[in-house]
Amino acid sequence: MTSFGADVSGQPLLPGVDAAARALERLRARTPLVHALTNTPSAGLLPNVLLAAGATTALVDTPHEAGVFAENADAVLVNLGTPTEERTAAFPEAVRSARASGRPWVLDPVGVGGLPWRTRTATELAQLGPTAVRANPSEITALAGSGARGRGVDSSQGSAAAEPAMRALLADARTVSASGSVDRALGSTASGGTGMLRVHGGSELLARVSATGCALGALCAAYLAAEPDPLTAVVAAHAHYAVAAELAEGTCRGPGTFTPAFLDALALVGPEQIRAHGHVEPVWYAEAGEV
Amino acid sequence: MTSFGADVSGQPLLPGVDAAARALERLRARTPLVHALTNTPSAGLLPNVLLAAGATTALVDTPHEAGVFAENADAVLVNLGTPTEERTAAFPEAVRSARASGRPWVLDPVGVGGLPWRTRTATELAQLGPTAVRANPSEITALAGSGARGRGVDSSQGSAAAEPAMRALLADARTVSASGSVDRALGSTASGGTGMLRVHGGSELLARVSATGCALGALCAAYLAAEPDPLTAVVAAHAHYAVAAELAEGTCRGPGTFTPAFLDALALVGPEQIRAHGHVEPVWYAEAGEV
Amino acid sequence: MTSFGADVSGQPLLPGVDAAARALERLRARTPLVHALTNTPSAGLLPNVLLAAGATTALVDTPHEAGVFAENADAVLVNLGTPTEERTAAFPEAVRSARASGRPWVLDPVGVGGLPWRTRTATELAQLGPTAVRANPSEITALAGSGARGRGVDSSQGSAAAEPAMRALLADARTVSASGSVDRALGSTASGGTGMLRVHGGSELLARVSATGCALGALCAAYLAAEPDPLTAVVAAHAHYAVAAELAEGTCRGPGTFTPAFLDALALVGPEQIRAHGHVEPVWYAEAGEV
Repeated sequence: MTSFGADVSGQPLLPGVDAAARALERLRARTPLVHALTNTPSAGLLPNVLLAAGATTALVDTPHEAGVFAENADAVLVNLGTPTEERTAAFPEAVRSARASGRPWVLDPVGVGGLPWRTRTATELAQLGPTAVRANPSEITALAGSGARGRGVDSSQGSAAAEPAMRALLADARTVSASGSVDRALGSTASGGTGMLRVHGGSELLARVSATGCALGALCAAYLAAEPDPLTAVVAAHAHYAVAAELAEGTCRGPGTFTPAFLDALALVGPEQIRAHGHVEPVWYAEAGEV
Repeated sequence: MTSFGADVSGQPLLPGVDAAARALERLRARTPLVHALTNTPSAGLLPNVLLAAGATTALVDTPHEAGVFAENADAVLVNLGTPTEERTAAFPEAVRSARASGRPWVLDPVGVGGLPWRTRTATELAQLGPTAVRANPSEITALAGSGARGRGVDSSQGSAAAEPAMRALLADARTVSASGSVDRALGSTASGGTGMLRVHGGSELLARVSATGCALGALCAAYLAAEPDPLTAVVAAHAHYAVAAELAEGTCRGPGTFTPAFLDALALVGPEQIRAHGHVEPVWYAEAGEV
Repeated sequence: MTSFGADVSGQPLLPGVDAAARALERLRARTPLVHALTNTPSAGLLPNVLLAAGATTALVDTPHEAGVFAENADAVLVNLGTPTEERTAAFPEAVRSARASGRPWVLDPVGVGGLPWRTRTATELAQLGPTAVRANPSEITALAGSGARGRGVDSSQGSAAAEPAMRALLADARTVSASGSVDRALGSTASGGTGMLRVHGGSELLARVSATGCALGALCAAYLAAEPDPLTAVVAAHAHYAVAAELAEGTCRGPGTFTPAFLDALALVGPEQIRAHGHVEPVWYAEAGEV
């Protein structure tokens, strides 16, 4: 495991706030369309997060339409909350289209672990090679465990405890990120190595508002459509979220006024705010074959 | 094609802000109940738009209940976003009830065009004679084209480009309105003629908030229940929306704080604000047989 | 029917603001998880109400998962709005799990009365003995009537008119509460008697915001998980709601800004605010065998 500072030419081996700021510029220039297959409680907030941040979205979640629609979207989000029969049948249709056209797709394994129905679905989808898995630490641990690649740990543990599970999921996924008081992102880099980063900041109020995690999964999909390097895209999405949440927390009076302030902040935050207020910390970097 | 100014008795041939203001008075006096069959992402905002504006609503969208419920509602909204099997089966049940009792109904063909499943549904529903079709220009063009009555145009064009498609849909619908930076409404008038109007105003932030178009379709249904002339009702709904959005834009800091401000404004706007701030412009009027 | 003041030891026979304040302390100490099976329009607001007030929730509403999930939740909410086939099949699964583990569950019979499909479902569920039924007066009357235990009354009547229906439902339910300009709660007490209370306060704006009633049903479930006496729990949920709504009304400009202010207030209100601003009024108390 080498230094995570920089390669021999002085280029950082892992994305920092500069790379995140450039990814935001690309997002704003592209306004990607995210095809969302998501849960009912997130259907209100998630599109508004994408619209505020600089993307667009459509929720197309019947098996009659998901495959066709994914062909024309820039990225696909598959979120396992409220997995009705039709939505569950639509998931693989959308994923197959995204894979066929080389488009990025995100798996958000909401609630995986104690619920066998969605855990089976999540395990099958994870094996199709998502560009990103985004979840909370306990879901990541459960997903890795369900694939017989790891071992469940107590769901109350933080994102550090999920590191072995994140590594296990990297067998199939290009990147894995865990939300928590400090977020973590793990992924393959353009140089063929693997790196882990922490994204600091955010607000405790994010946990007091429903579906903020789900909307972050959708924002990862938007960034993946605009930024060619998946790990940079995921780190940028988490950093954008954290900076906006911090800004919003300073202007609100509670979890109710936080939400509109947060959407305002997602729109207001530009590359300069990411550079000035983003906190992206490299944790480790390993060259190919070292992990 | 005659002047759109006024008839021989001095009465305007097409509704203006005065007629829109009177329609708002009727809406507030009636508090109509809109039976909404709508998509999942709009299920949060749409009822709040109706409640703020001066109507009420219930989302009843299973085939077990849609027909029965529509019998007692004042108007029906059929919105094609997220067309699950059950919702799709419920659409014609609600429409049949509305038609049987002579109640107005609105068709909002969300996403029609590239998606064959919902396009087929929309085409069948359009042929049942909606009181109003409300959509964005590309959806209107796609709906007209799917019925072999028109020709698809590029979906990025504005509402002016949709005029031929709007005319084509008038073969079945009583009115057709297109949302855009400037809205357009086309319809039969009480005198037996046909007229096109533009509704100016609004806010670019409407496009940064999810489901605002869907909620406008529902507001059209509410006005149609309270105002006997369909074209006046549709123009009034668009004008109410535009005036409230303009007002809200002046009091918010971004797309997040726009939404609560917009709902406040929908409630606050009264007939005087419509008369003072509404911008309804007649475009052309044609007597019966002239179109 | 005895005095509702106090028993021979000076203990109040019916819960007042002190008991409601203690229930709020228990809620905050416990942060109960409410398993919600609810309607689509409430899926955005309802989780935010619970998170703001001091609970958590997950919407798990497929028959594949509802039974399993309810085993681990602290309380279950069954809300009959938008009863899709899958959701309707999930309701009894969740209720059976709650009953098997002795956990509280709430029935919110949204729209029951004119719609036979959901009325049949509601009647069957009511007979399974909910810990609480929460609804508006007309729904309570309809539910009681459908069970052949009462007689329908005009749905426009207030909560006083629903008292006979509330009593009828007490044959199966432990408590029944009716929302209105003044709320009413009826239930068995720890001493084996039965009591009726009124909860005053709140805001007319609650009726201008969609799904506030549904979210109150969920809040009743949260309190029932934290407070052992069901009638106290239900009264406390209604009082918490009323105090927060009053507070929010004073800081907003309309139905749009009311919602974030209300969520802020739900979070801000503590036991002291309940004691200072709650208005819980005993109406009558009857010892066992007297009703």
